[in-house]
Amino acid sequence: MARDPRFDVLFEEVQIGPKTLRNRFWQVPHCNGAGSERPGMQAEFRGVKAEGGWAAVFTEICLMTPDSDPLPWIGSRIWDNGDIRNLALMCEKVQEHGSLAGAELTHGGGLNHNAETRLPARGASQIPSDISAASCRAMSKREIRQIQGEHVDAALRARAAGFDLLTLFCGLANITNFFMYPFYNKRTDEYGGSLQNRLRFTKEVLEMMREAIDDCAIGIRMPIDTLEEPYGYGEAGFVADRDAPEYLETLSPLVDYWDLNVGTLNWGEDAGSSRFFPSNHQAPYTRIAKQHTDKPCVNVGRFTEPEVMLEAITSGQCDIIGAARPSISDPFLPKKIEEGRFDDIRECIGCNVCVSRWEIGGPPIWCTQNPTSGEEYRRGWHPEYYTRAKNTETAILVVGAGPAGLETAMVLGKRGYEAVHLVDDHKRMGGHLGWVSSMPGFAAWRRVVDWRETQIDQLDNVQFVPSTRLTADDILDYGAEHVVLATGSVWAGDGMNGPMHDVIPGADAALPHVLTPEQVVVDEKQLGQRVLVVDHDNYYMGSAMAQVAAEKGSDVTYVTHWDSLGEYLRFTLEEQRMWEKLTELGVEVHSQHLTLSLENNVGSLLHLWSGKERSVEFDSVILVTQRNSVCDIYDELHDDGERLAGAGIQSVHLVGDAHTPGMVAQSVFSGHRLAREFDSADPSVALPFIRERRLVGSTEDDFTLTSVSISDKIAN
Amino acid sequence: MARDPRFDVLFEEVQIGPKTLRNRFWQVPHCNGAGSERPGMQAEFRGVKAEGGWAAVFTEICLMTPDSDPLPWIGSRIWDNGDIRNLALMCEKVQEHGSLAGAELTHGGGLNHNAETRLPARGASQIPSDISAASCRAMSKREIRQIQGEHVDAALRARAAGFDLLTLFCGLANITNFFMYPFYNKRTDEYGGSLQNRLRFTKEVLEMMREAIDDCAIGIRMPIDTLEEPYGYGEAGFVADRDAPEYLETLSPLVDYWDLNVGTLNWGEDAGSSRFFPSNHQAPYTRIAKQHTDKPCVNVGRFTEPEVMLEAITSGQCDIIGAARPSISDPFLPKKIEEGRFDDIRECIGCNVCVSRWEIGGPPIWCTQNPTSGEEYRRGWHPEYYTRAKNTETAILVVGAGPAGLETAMVLGKRGYEAVHLVDDHKRMGGHLGWVSSMPGFAAWRRVVDWRETQIDQLDNVQFVPSTRLTADDILDYGAEHVVLATGSVWAGDGMNGPMHDVIPGADAALPHVLTPEQVVVDEKQLGQRVLVVDHDNYYMGSAMAQVAAEKGSDVTYVTHWDSLGEYLRFTLEEQRMWEKLTELGVEVHSQHLTLSLENNVGSLLHLWSGKERSVEFDSVILVTQRNSVCDIYDELHDDGERLAGAGIQSVHLVGDAHTPGMVAQSVFSGHRLAREFDSADPSVALPFIRERRLVGSTEDDFTLTSVSISDKIAN
Repeated sequence: MARDPRFDVLFEEVQIGPKTLRNRFWQVPHCNGAGSERPGMQAEFRGVKAEGGWAAVFTEICLMTPDSDPLPWIGSRIWDNGDIRNLALMCEKVQEHGSLAGAELTHGGGLNHNAETRLPARGASQIPSDISAASCRAMSKREIRQIQGEHVDAALRARAAGFDLLTLFCGLANITNFFMYPFYNKRTDEYGGSLQNRLRFTKEVLEMMREAIDDCAIGIRMPIDTLEEPYGYGEAGFVADRDAPEYLETLSPLVDYWDLNVGTLNWGEDAGSSRFFPSNHQAPYTRIAKQHTDKPCVNVGRFTEPEVMLEAITSGQCDIIGAARPSISDPFLPKKIEEGRFDDIRECIGCNVCVSRWEIGGPPIWCTQNPTSGEEYRRGWHPEYYTRAKNTETAILVVGAGPAGLETAMVLGKRGYEAVHLVDDHKRMGGHLGWVSSMPGFAAWRRVVDWRETQIDQLDNVQFVPSTRLTADDILDYGAEHVVLATGSVWAGDGMNGPMHDVIPGADAALPHVLTPEQVVVDEKQLGQRVLVVDHDNYYMGSAMAQVAAEKGSDVTYVTHWDSLGEYLRFTLEEQRMWEKLTELGVEVHSQHLTLSLENNVGSLLHLWSGKERSVEFDSVILVTQRNSVCDIYDELHDDGERLAGAGIQSVHLVGDAHTPGMVAQSVFSGHRLAREFDSADPSVALPFIRERRLVGSTEDDFTLTSVSISDKIAN
Repeated sequence: MARDPRFDVLFEEVQIGPKTLRNRFWQVPHCNGAGSERPGMQAEFRGVKAEGGWAAVFTEICLMTPDSDPLPWIGSRIWDNGDIRNLALMCEKVQEHGSLAGAELTHGGGLNHNAETRLPARGASQIPSDISAASCRAMSKREIRQIQGEHVDAALRARAAGFDLLTLFCGLANITNFFMYPFYNKRTDEYGGSLQNRLRFTKEVLEMMREAIDDCAIGIRMPIDTLEEPYGYGEAGFVADRDAPEYLETLSPLVDYWDLNVGTLNWGEDAGSSRFFPSNHQAPYTRIAKQHTDKPCVNVGRFTEPEVMLEAITSGQCDIIGAARPSISDPFLPKKIEEGRFDDIRECIGCNVCVSRWEIGGPPIWCTQNPTSGEEYRRGWHPEYYTRAKNTETAILVVGAGPAGLETAMVLGKRGYEAVHLVDDHKRMGGHLGWVSSMPGFAAWRRVVDWRETQIDQLDNVQFVPSTRLTADDILDYGAEHVVLATGSVWAGDGMNGPMHDVIPGADAALPHVLTPEQVVVDEKQLGQRVLVVDHDNYYMGSAMAQVAAEKGSDVTYVTHWDSLGEYLRFTLEEQRMWEKLTELGVEVHSQHLTLSLENNVGSLLHLWSGKERSVEFDSVILVTQRNSVCDIYDELHDDGERLAGAGIQSVHLVGDAHTPGMVAQSVFSGHRLAREFDSADPSVALPFIRERRLVGSTEDDFTLTSVSISDKIAN
């Protein structure tokens, strides 16, 4: 299939200083949990994106010195020769496909507490970090010169690793921001005060970098606007209308490109969740840049649709389509556009699960749409290609067409299994995502189903059997040799919950005034005027129920044992916007409370810390406490070897929520893994994956060399 | 110096199944951030303890299978051959000194969400984890048999690594606890219900382990009592008086030793902070064990004093002195008792900073008292031995005898510098710890000062000069060739703070009704009846001020932007007890609030999430917002090369809070590092340390081997 020539503009070359970008697709810096510590994972993760058509592929934050140590958050590091070696592998893998490799050079300044290196932090003014225990030293001019020199040293190390593009990161909150914004900068010398003074640090660093390096492109990644309070720094930050002309014009001669976004350390306003932000939501801010610079500009904004990208380029908004999340969800997005395969694009749903793994600190990346993300090296999974199974002649029955079942059936199909039946008791595919995606803000989540439906439609060997409820006997009689049960989960109707490990007296969804989320959305069971939402779950459902009930006109009180809303919304950067939504809707929030009883239309709540009790009267109560697996068929069959053998069934597997209720990302992964390993000795047990760790017995020289090289640098 | 023969009993051998413990000192399992991923750090950290006389030295939690993956919290892992190889190094280093190496075999069951391995979790009943997003599968009997087999496989791998002692961990909250306690176990089959049924899982695992292994000692680590609510599980857990006779007698024939403590996942009741728990606080619970078992019993309880240890043994409370924190604070504690050097014991202060590093997830261990902790391999630091400096003839002036100055002077002295002067403007050593340790609950913190004072007293080459305030000119004239400024920090008197990055209108400690912590404690400035404590710091000072003011009889309101009290108290496991204390004292707590203004004796507070405002009237306000470094002398001198050269001063250094206000652990570390590296090219810049990471270029075979070996296991 050829693409419409209208999209040719996306595949034009762009000159970036001394380098040539082969098209207009740019994977902006984003974390994946690999850092420099897991070099294989890092290299293959980025390499696959280059293979998929991204013309520039960046590291995540790449920390320049040991006093910029964000542990437990994982960035890459370019501290020493060992890091050069590790990141060189990434550069190779990216350049192999004709793409440019970029490093996002970062110094966290006073933000980091240097947990691993134990060094004190350096900043512009002495104010404690907004996120941690750290304070910092307000550097003297001699110390400023020192740290600027360290920036150049780090840039030289990045060049030695083979990077083509060196981005000086001036975003979130790092040493450059500490000087730029009055929010951080309280200095009274020539590095504080006027905008020119506050730009001095960054300007000098860029000048020093350019003097030392002329064969890499050097650019800046920064927010064009740090937004109004309470989302940003207000007057104490950068206000685009007020400041952008001056800082763009001041720094433009010193850069080869601009990578522009919006926001602050509160980066949910940049990596905006789809529940609260449309695609290209930053355009109103970023589009003014090109009036004040002649250097190529990169924009981001969860670009997944080719038409939106085209409009961004042809309207003069920007020169290059930047993407983090869409490139995770579909590493082959540019290639699919290039080949006109628009329907094959696995669009990012904007759920921010990728973001959440960084926010938790430590764990590697997960993606809801792309279960191979982060597994390219560890498990050897490619996002587009599948090995043909050894036992393709086997007949497989997959029961349940929710996320786990859909993924299992699709991957089994792509691996060449000749007869895969996907049976569901509903007419449409989707499982719980069918009704979840009908809730306000969740429409984009439907993409998980839509993309898989499209793929399955293209597979002749996978057959969807709708509107069919199978009993255990039906399954035994079906004629399959292998059975995968992806039967999902349902919300508990008795209040059983994690914090109290018990049911809640009065919680009984068989009663007219007690509801589960399914009863609210699917059954449209009647809600009274005063609604209590009991959220002892940890993610979106509790606050979403409060929103649904309030939008139906009820007076809503919301209670949770978490510190504010469900804990996980903090990690997906949705907490603040969700709070705003609930506040707008007049929802009363009681956080840090357990629910002792729901009898007689009164919720008895207990404050976790003070032990104080509180009562809330209600007409209806919505129970968002935990989900229970639907696994009775599995429990009935899998222990009964005789019955299975009699039916000619060789194995029964349980995937997704039916095994363990979790996030959609987990269900998709669960199905994907099973299908990838379906021809292994026992696919119920996961194969091992490569763990990147130092092993006793590897060469000590590696470390000695590393140490000596830093010592030398320090001595010079 | 010989020890009093009364203590000989502590150095008797104890038979532990097939193994002989050379004395009664046992380093119980505790985390250090090394896991199996940093084998050098792990091995040297544990090896130094064996060298210091601990007869048994354990790993932290040692996870048995890839579906027990606690990331971002770091445990060791015994999943595969790579882990065997990495932990074998620890066994070697421990056994080199005649000690026994132990592994704490752990399976987190449904507690872990398996962030790295992405496998679903297995548990006894399907209830979400009390701490994370995880739910779990309620295992069938076939699945129970599978996981029990995996326990045995893991024990065999631990044996292969060389461990002498295999502890089945039945504490905090793991798979054995999930079966033991009704809190987790809702099963109706033979694994649920009666105590015998709930012990069945553990009993079977022990039987299988003993059948497979007869040359290691096999024991259990578990709480003898899971405590009353709200500290523990109440009736739904193990109540020692009710249950201990039965479970001790049931399991006793299957174990070679018992490692007993108290508590639950809420482990602040076990690792009790010195602010709330005395030494040996668990004795009232644990002492009943010996009535129901003839196997040796280990007890813990922050044992630092030889007399208390002696009493625990001779009274029949236990057979073996277990320790985690005291062994971190002083790895040579047993040896010092053995040699009668009681004054040299570096006693744990019970501040739980070690615990906090685990709680944060990811970072390596820190210890307030022992800055070499975790640095034995990385930086090559030994807790007791120092290399002689190259330039010992140099005269060094250390200004300020707080934690950083004391540590600097002491280490310089131990490194052989001939003339070290430690000058302070107070009569006694201690800096801010002088007054901090006078606050209620902080007496043990004084040990940081006392121990260093004792050590310095023994060093002829270090001279303490009290009651002397030095100006910049005094320092220039002093005659030193190197100057170290350890001049500390003071609490801000203007309300400058991290969350708002600004001063607070009305905050001015020059006014009679506005106080800093120093003014409250040192100056005893008058407090009014209604006191507002403004805590925008992150640790103990805010809530401690609320306690101090309330105990003086004021009506106290406490406000913080954190979720409950200062964030860091959550990591040191002090939050719950501190809340209880404030509740007892009638303190009103407003968490999640910023302080907009303190004008006209009214605090205007803003709720972080809802944006709602609230007013609090007060007579006095205590500002706990941030600390400011006292570094004016440094700032005056260090840039002025000419003036320094004129005075014959070769270098000026800034350490501790004077550089960056931080925790005591950081100040001590800062001084220690400087002194350890004082003869390097530029001691102001830290030398590199060994970073344990996989480097590109190390042998791929290591990983191939690892993978194949697990596959084999799975296939069998």
